[in-house]
Amino acid sequence: MAARAGVSTATVSNALNGTGRLSEATRQRVLAAAREVGHAPASAARALARGSTGVLGLTMTTYGDLPVSYMEIPYYAQLTLGAMATAHERGYMLMVMPSSLSPWMWLNTPMDGVIHVEPRADDPVRSILRERGIPMVTDGRPPQPHWRDAWVDTDYEAGLRLLLDHLTEAGARRIALSQPLHDDEYPHLIGRAYASWCAEHDMPALVEEYASLPDYFTAERDAVSRLLNRDPRPDAVIGVYSDSGHNILAAARHHGLRVPQDLLVACISEDPDYATTTPPVTTLSLRPDRVSDEAVDLLIALINARSGVDRHRLVQPVLAPRRSTRRPVRRGNGTP
Amino acid sequence: MAARAGVSTATVSNALNGTGRLSEATRQRVLAAAREVGHAPASAARALARGSTGVLGLTMTTYGDLPVSYMEIPYYAQLTLGAMATAHERGYMLMVMPSSLSPWMWLNTPMDGVIHVEPRADDPVRSILRERGIPMVTDGRPPQPHWRDAWVDTDYEAGLRLLLDHLTEAGARRIALSQPLHDDEYPHLIGRAYASWCAEHDMPALVEEYASLPDYFTAERDAVSRLLNRDPRPDAVIGVYSDSGHNILAAARHHGLRVPQDLLVACISEDPDYATTTPPVTTLSLRPDRVSDEAVDLLIALINARSGVDRHRLVQPVLAPRRSTRRPVRRGNGTP
Repeated sequence: MAARAGVSTATVSNALNGTGRLSEATRQRVLAAAREVGHAPASAARALARGSTGVLGLTMTTYGDLPVSYMEIPYYAQLTLGAMATAHERGYMLMVMPSSLSPWMWLNTPMDGVIHVEPRADDPVRSILRERGIPMVTDGRPPQPHWRDAWVDTDYEAGLRLLLDHLTEAGARRIALSQPLHDDEYPHLIGRAYASWCAEHDMPALVEEYASLPDYFTAERDAVSRLLNRDPRPDAVIGVYSDSGHNILAAARHHGLRVPQDLLVACISEDPDYATTTPPVTTLSLRPDRVSDEAVDLLIALINARSGVDRHRLVQPVLAPRRSTRRPVRRGNGTP
Repeated sequence: MAARAGVSTATVSNALNGTGRLSEATRQRVLAAAREVGHAPASAARALARGSTGVLGLTMTTYGDLPVSYMEIPYYAQLTLGAMATAHERGYMLMVMPSSLSPWMWLNTPMDGVIHVEPRADDPVRSILRERGIPMVTDGRPPQPHWRDAWVDTDYEAGLRLLLDHLTEAGARRIALSQPLHDDEYPHLIGRAYASWCAEHDMPALVEEYASLPDYFTAERDAVSRLLNRDPRPDAVIGVYSDSGHNILAAARHHGLRVPQDLLVACISEDPDYATTTPPVTTLSLRPDRVSDEAVDLLIALINARSGVDRHRLVQPVLAPRRSTRRPVRRGNGTP
């Protein structure tokens, strides 16, 4: 091939691998020669030999066909960027599948394996992908678990313990949970972790539920309002979605309550905006960067049929304490 | 096909389009029947008919084969997320191409068109893609422009004017530029816009250049140090990369200068962290969300060979003024 292009073998290698500094004319001559002899570099040839595409898929279908702006939700944005960075490092491309794909596309888009993000109960995409038979890793435990499933999830028990212990240290004794209703496993696992912590610590479980679709902003503000109307009132409220902190602050303002003096506020979110709200809001991060890292690693292991792979992986969440949960300073006479 | 699967046509439609609530068994029966008769939904059939893949490519190769973490640089992260959201809305998938791809992959990865981000002078990827012959839109003007090129760029003239006028209003009279050296067009266009503003306003052009690769952090801090050693000293410094604000703040601290009292600081960045630095730093946003929106729109127009399409598009940058450029309050006797 070097002879055909009239260049050295080093130049051929540079042209095919994109290394070195070649003139455009030389590079094109080598590429033309490569196409003529049907040459493919070793890595691509290997990929073809194992019938693979070098592409990993990632689903964004947690909310079905609803036009949800996943890319504007910090958790999904960070998950996508993290999965893409890790896939690239490992020599794969990542294809994010929009929620609007038809089953035909789910069955036929070329990919070696897929990361299924937060499957719902009786998820149609899950059954289609299972039928297709390509390796699959779920982000979040599937609602109907099977021992053969491969998943990466967050250790919600540990996360809720971090958050609830932190609120207790800040003086809270009546910690309420504003709880969305949706048929992926996430809100259920959070609810269970909250309830078991409350039982263990002999604290009341104060829960108000709301519909997560189509508009959780209004629904959650109403749910928090119902919590704040209770007698005795909660002294802390936790939200579990990205904008829950904003929703709880809005409800507190509406009730004339000061944060943190009258009410402590925290939520599970990756949104950096909480560093600059009034007051800044304490958040629990689910570490989507770590989740995507583990999911890509696990998927590549399954694609290559590696043995002895840990198919169930838990990522540890991290607490970012901010002013909204700082223990209010009380005067000597005990009045706030 | 409904007869073959033993279901109604509405059920077939639901199964193929992922709508409605079907049992898994029913859905699978319909999908099996669909495969048997070789049925593909209209949109996918149309795509196949025009020989298309439904995939848009996006390059991340501005820094060649260097292991740059594009997904951690806010401009590229927002560009990627924005392009993905717009592609999905328009019925396409987006494939982000890692910088490490071989020419073989650039020539053969299935895609209908590609967005080439910030091509370099004599860019090998550009010549490969041109040879492949698929529609291409560049984000940032190509270094050797041709009238047939299709590109989306930022209006740097307008952006620099916003920033320099703002600094002048805050009292600056000696505004310096810390200028990276790299063979994409971005730093050149910024440098030109700065120089022409200075000439127009009869202000001195104070520039120190530094190598952008492999480590612009140290290199830029040294360049800013050289600026701050000048006599007379600049009273404002502008940086053009995402971490430039941090670099300039570090150099100012090293010189014992207070920001904004002794030195005004600003940079071109999408990093939300600048809202919480000490002090918060004024930034010019290049609006990667708008750039990616326009680039996807233009690329789809080219793929569909629409006529009368505007092939050269400029996005307007936006200024976020913060404390680092607030006019220092001076005492009555004129000392700061």
